[in-house]
Amino acid sequence: MIHQNNSSAGYTLPPIGENPSTEAQGTNPGSFAKPSKIAPGVEGRYTFASPDTPGMPEPSMKTAWDFMPEDWTLKAGYEENYQNAEAWQTPDGFEPMTQLESARMGIVTPEMLRVAEKETHLTPEQIRDEVAAGRMIIPANKVHLGYNLEPMCIGRASKTKVNANMGASPVSSGTDEEVEKLKWAEKWGADTVMDLSTGGKIDECRETIIQNSLVPIGTVPIYSMIIGRKIDDLNREIILESLEQQAKQGVDYFTIHAGILQEHLEFVKDRLIGVVSRGGSLLAKWMIIHRQQNIMYTLWEEICDVMREYDVSFSIGDGLRPGGLADATDAAQLAELVALGTLTERAWRKGIQVMVEGPGHVPFDQIEYNMKLERQLCHGAPFYVLGPLVTDIFPGYDHITSCIGATAAGYHGASMLCYVTPKEHLGLPKKDDVKQGCVAYKIAAHASDVALGIPGTRDRDDELTKARAALNWQKHFDLSFDPDVARAYHDEDLDVDTDFCAMCGHDWCSVRISKEIVQFASGKDADYAWDKTKISEALTDEQKEILEKRGVLSPDQIHKLASKTKKVMEADKDKASCHSDYVDTDDAQTLQETSLPIIE
Amino acid sequence: MIHQNNSSAGYTLPPIGENPSTEAQGTNPGSFAKPSKIAPGVEGRYTFASPDTPGMPEPSMKTAWDFMPEDWTLKAGYEENYQNAEAWQTPDGFEPMTQLESARMGIVTPEMLRVAEKETHLTPEQIRDEVAAGRMIIPANKVHLGYNLEPMCIGRASKTKVNANMGASPVSSGTDEEVEKLKWAEKWGADTVMDLSTGGKIDECRETIIQNSLVPIGTVPIYSMIIGRKIDDLNREIILESLEQQAKQGVDYFTIHAGILQEHLEFVKDRLIGVVSRGGSLLAKWMIIHRQQNIMYTLWEEICDVMREYDVSFSIGDGLRPGGLADATDAAQLAELVALGTLTERAWRKGIQVMVEGPGHVPFDQIEYNMKLERQLCHGAPFYVLGPLVTDIFPGYDHITSCIGATAAGYHGASMLCYVTPKEHLGLPKKDDVKQGCVAYKIAAHASDVALGIPGTRDRDDELTKARAALNWQKHFDLSFDPDVARAYHDEDLDVDTDFCAMCGHDWCSVRISKEIVQFASGKDADYAWDKTKISEALTDEQKEILEKRGVLSPDQIHKLASKTKKVMEADKDKASCHSDYVDTDDAQTLQETSLPIIE
Repeated sequence: MIHQNNSSAGYTLPPIGENPSTEAQGTNPGSFAKPSKIAPGVEGRYTFASPDTPGMPEPSMKTAWDFMPEDWTLKAGYEENYQNAEAWQTPDGFEPMTQLESARMGIVTPEMLRVAEKETHLTPEQIRDEVAAGRMIIPANKVHLGYNLEPMCIGRASKTKVNANMGASPVSSGTDEEVEKLKWAEKWGADTVMDLSTGGKIDECRETIIQNSLVPIGTVPIYSMIIGRKIDDLNREIILESLEQQAKQGVDYFTIHAGILQEHLEFVKDRLIGVVSRGGSLLAKWMIIHRQQNIMYTLWEEICDVMREYDVSFSIGDGLRPGGLADATDAAQLAELVALGTLTERAWRKGIQVMVEGPGHVPFDQIEYNMKLERQLCHGAPFYVLGPLVTDIFPGYDHITSCIGATAAGYHGASMLCYVTPKEHLGLPKKDDVKQGCVAYKIAAHASDVALGIPGTRDRDDELTKARAALNWQKHFDLSFDPDVARAYHDEDLDVDTDFCAMCGHDWCSVRISKEIVQFASGKDADYAWDKTKISEALTDEQKEILEKRGVLSPDQIHKLASKTKKVMEADKDKASCHSDYVDTDDAQTLQETSLPIIE
Repeated sequence: MIHQNNSSAGYTLPPIGENPSTEAQGTNPGSFAKPSKIAPGVEGRYTFASPDTPGMPEPSMKTAWDFMPEDWTLKAGYEENYQNAEAWQTPDGFEPMTQLESARMGIVTPEMLRVAEKETHLTPEQIRDEVAAGRMIIPANKVHLGYNLEPMCIGRASKTKVNANMGASPVSSGTDEEVEKLKWAEKWGADTVMDLSTGGKIDECRETIIQNSLVPIGTVPIYSMIIGRKIDDLNREIILESLEQQAKQGVDYFTIHAGILQEHLEFVKDRLIGVVSRGGSLLAKWMIIHRQQNIMYTLWEEICDVMREYDVSFSIGDGLRPGGLADATDAAQLAELVALGTLTERAWRKGIQVMVEGPGHVPFDQIEYNMKLERQLCHGAPFYVLGPLVTDIFPGYDHITSCIGATAAGYHGASMLCYVTPKEHLGLPKKDDVKQGCVAYKIAAHASDVALGIPGTRDRDDELTKARAALNWQKHFDLSFDPDVARAYHDEDLDVDTDFCAMCGHDWCSVRISKEIVQFASGKDADYAWDKTKISEALTDEQKEILEKRGVLSPDQIHKLASKTKKVMEADKDKASCHSDYVDTDDAQTLQETSLPIIE
């Protein structure tokens, strides 16, 4: 919210740029910020974007409407206006199997309706249009919908999403434990969960997770394809059979590293840390052994056929993602991104929903470029990024190094942020690591949404600010993302809630003074003077002197004072420990005054 | 580092924008990235900046050379070329007292020499020129220099700095404890420390801190001015006397909230949370009581005279900084920023070094605007920002919410970042909170420097990436900012270092495969095939089968394996637990193979 009308103050501020929030905050979709250019026919009505720094790659002029199945016919007269359902004739007897196909036919599916209930700034028709344009996906396997899946969407028009990774291993984790981890990730706000299991009763575990999850489940199917085999032996039959099996189980999206190609391998030698994607390195090895193109790339259309039956979405993996800042935005990564664009087009022609995976280590200044290059090469297909980390030298804190990058990514173009935990590069995350990763990424996603001005996203921030202004601690905690931690940190210093805070005490509280300023500025209390608040005449001179100094009360003193207040008010008996619930301002001040001299 | 020469791959990438890192990384100062415009005569040779998003405020065309003392005479013929020492005649008998005055006279001070040793990409003369232009300060009270102060600089040409706050209170903390906190903050990388004490033996404590600190110490002098008195009674004598006393003690910089003016108070009523700066609210109250302009504003030149004697620097406080996203970039804040620009000019005319304080809560998209507006209104005086927090709803995690904002601030224009701890808004930070705050802000500062392409700043990241590529855990830890935490997290899963990591095991390690790809791509090993790495024929069929599956070893299995390996290699006796120190690759693999069947 930027105020421009302040000429009354006697100065003129410099012009403010096209700031998305300026236009978008709290208003209707018609006034959303727009990218500098947008594909014709879709006009970016429902997308959010950061302004482009000079030199950034321009948006693609194409959308999924430009990559229609060959057996769909463009009706005569629609050559210039082909980006809508009316322009297209489907093949005889065609039944839509995927959300994308439904959207292309103009159908608002039940899943789109449910998504619109959660994305309150979007209508079901806007959801449908975004899905049709390929800028949004609803990863919802039909089998999973038969259990408890709560449909959600991933795309630039909607709120930024967060993914949490989990995974069983042969001995350390059973199916029950994995379900518990799933519920934990859901509790801390994960919008999707990837099951990266590599061992244990892997099929049974996956099935149980799918049956229990409210959120979409993604997998990297190559992990199970090579269990009990060498990568050498990977072939068409194994691939299609594995995918069919997982699709049938209800997996909502597959990460497939089809973009790493033979011709990219020469770029790897210029890197500091080569290939860090496990799927990418396995397929690289397969190509080296077989001296053939990436089998996932060549089988792409057949893979699409398997996925279409269940409406599994693609998360096209970036096998050449950089493993350190030095390898970021390099020839290997960019070459692969070009291939990811091609794969996106091919998937759209088969009616499959697509998101594209993005880099894990990127210097802060290169994030916008990476996001906007994807927007160009992949025609706005949702970008699903890992972090990225903006420095390499803080192992143990990579949930922080990466949520910085994730915020910039979310602002500049990513639609889903894959979390990184404090254990990244060091070991497998434990339960608290999962929580820390989720919280850091909810921060990143929310900060992005606020920055983009998605309507309504800042409301809770503003409510919390108001609770702070009112010194209403209970409401402060209630509005916090993690109320328990907020309360625990607060109570460490001050175990009763008061209408002043531990920093300044009652009289010198800046919030309190602000209220007086407001009265003063409004002219309602032009005669207001500080000394109106009298100290009781019953006090001794010494007591008065102490009182006059109470602006510099230490936390310990305030703590003691608060405890006394609490006792006097009998708040320790049965009332919620929210001062404003049980005492008015004058009483609080009187109590403070009378109690203070007792304190050391 | 962005690679452009990849046409050999058969595709052409879109052009890459003016990315500071592209030009600046690792090269000489002559090729530094430049802001779009720069004041004449200084040409931005030594400054780093992000490219300007369209609509951003343009840089000021003025520098400190435009605000010279009235008794300095511009020599004839220098009207067009006044931004250098030769152009100016000082008054008779003039002796420089501040770094700024020395710089204006063309003098390279001993402090500039020492600063240049730490900012290895800058020469002493470049430091001097930046100080003369007002874009850099060296906060170094002459008294503090007589103790142990290690001079440092704050400015856009140098590395981004971090401040940590501390402060004694009447009962909870003695002088010894405060010195311990100071050393703790220094250990975790604080570049300056602010002593915000409000009680206890406040003068004695401040003096001891100054005598013991290697880093500059800042204070908010109004806190001690009102101890034992009411804000009503604040007057000229008290102010100048207090400042004189603290200056004489050796305080390096003063935060003075002189920019909040009477005419700004009307804007406060439009805010959700009014005035959140304690200094700001006290002075607001003073103005309301006395119906006079901010006394700090009217006394500015006299304050400068006191500070000049000791070379105390200004940190001009932002009393109207926003207390929530809703109040960010509002009329109150921007009106005050205009006043901060005026105060900057007035201080420069008195020869005083200046930095300007900036906002604490700002949506991510408004950060660049805030940074670049300061660059315009305050003519590039170093910007010292608190956070800013990019969301309000994560109390307990505000070291994270704010270090996201701090990274963007550092990239777009801030020179020093004031840390925020997890206790922000909730209570007073304890020792671990101080550490968490420092680490988060070292991340922000370092990520900014890497993004800006300050030469040499990414070297340690690259070394760590190389250590990762070599699976050299010991070096990995040594290069980490917090080696103990990194090692602890690692050892939780794997208590011996190996040349594979806990995720993939030995054979499917992507780093290992990368090496093979390099050999393959280089043509050195065109016949390379995976099956060359033979499994010992001495193994049973069952053992071989297990071995073939070892790519999916669980962490627990690897842990057991690693422990066994360690024992066999006698690494648990007296050697550092770094595998590569005591076993070569073949031995490691053999060991793994022979040990594996023993595992469950």
